[in-house]
Amino acid sequence: MADAALFEFLHTEMVAELWAPDPDAGSGGKKKSLSVLEGVGFRVGQALGERLPRETLAVREELDALKFLCKDLWAAMFQKHMDGLRTNHQGTYVLQDNSFPLLLTMGSGSQYLEEAPKFLAFTCGLLCGALHTLGFQSLVTASVTALPACKFQVVIQKS
Amino acid sequence: MADAALFEFLHTEMVAELWAPDPDAGSGGKKKSLSVLEGVGFRVGQALGERLPRETLAVREELDALKFLCKDLWAAMFQKHMDGLRTNHQGTYVLQDNSFPLLLTMGSGSQYLEEAPKFLAFTCGLLCGALHTLGFQSLVTASVTALPACKFQVVIQKS
Repeated sequence: MADAALFEFLHTEMVAELWAPDPDAGSGGKKKSLSVLEGVGFRVGQALGERLPRETLAVREELDALKFLCKDLWAAMFQKHMDGLRTNHQGTYVLQDNSFPLLLTMGSGSQYLEEAPKFLAFTCGLLCGALHTLGFQSLVTASVTALPACKFQVVIQKS
Repeated sequence: MADAALFEFLHTEMVAELWAPDPDAGSGGKKKSLSVLEGVGFRVGQALGERLPRETLAVREELDALKFLCKDLWAAMFQKHMDGLRTNHQGTYVLQDNSFPLLLTMGSGSQYLEEAPKFLAFTCGLLCGALHTLGFQSLVTASVTALPACKFQVVIQKS
């Protein structure tokens, strides 16, 4: 087990380095930077998923996969569990973290809210990548209403 | 403590993303990519250094600082100690890791040797950043003769 701060510091610096939206590209530049961060997260999530014990990889129930993210994956990343998991039982899940570690380095005022997406993109990709390894295609988005709490919405794509 | 693989996977993917030497720029492009990775490492090393207990920050002997890198810092990053530390007692130190974890993802044949620098730049910067927090200016370079072993050479800059 590595010092948890190492991952968090590296994440912060990677965001600083990869967050370089072209000012001339407007919102397109931001989208491109976010998708680069999501891509990095996806590949890390896939790789983490591939290290899982075989019994976990045999999970075939959606809800079990989501519980795995909320417990085992969150513990490996942040030494805690997700604070909440809700579902509409139709393939949409909302995962709530009341104090998301990768947002803690930001200020907590609402004036920083618009900075939040770049600190969430990697983790959205990571959740999606881990689900991919578990056999589920998904769309993952994040939202923040009051820092440092955030919600990840996972929509499982039926094939 | 976080799953050690998380840091290693994130490092690998960050290298893949930031290693984009401009083919037209020749060796200049490679140098630029390496210095970006070193810069990320430096800032992570500084931040890790700032988390150290105060008694460590009071270290003022060069050799104690180097021993700290080889033991405490390496343990926090890689769950092991550096395999060797040698010095000429004139400010030059050679730190040897016989199985450097960030090189383990590469193949071990000599044909991959030229790929090694991009997997070492972050850690060179990190050692330099941690030393900076401890009060020492340094130049850190790395060399590989047989994967996955590598040596980091630290030259303390006298002010």
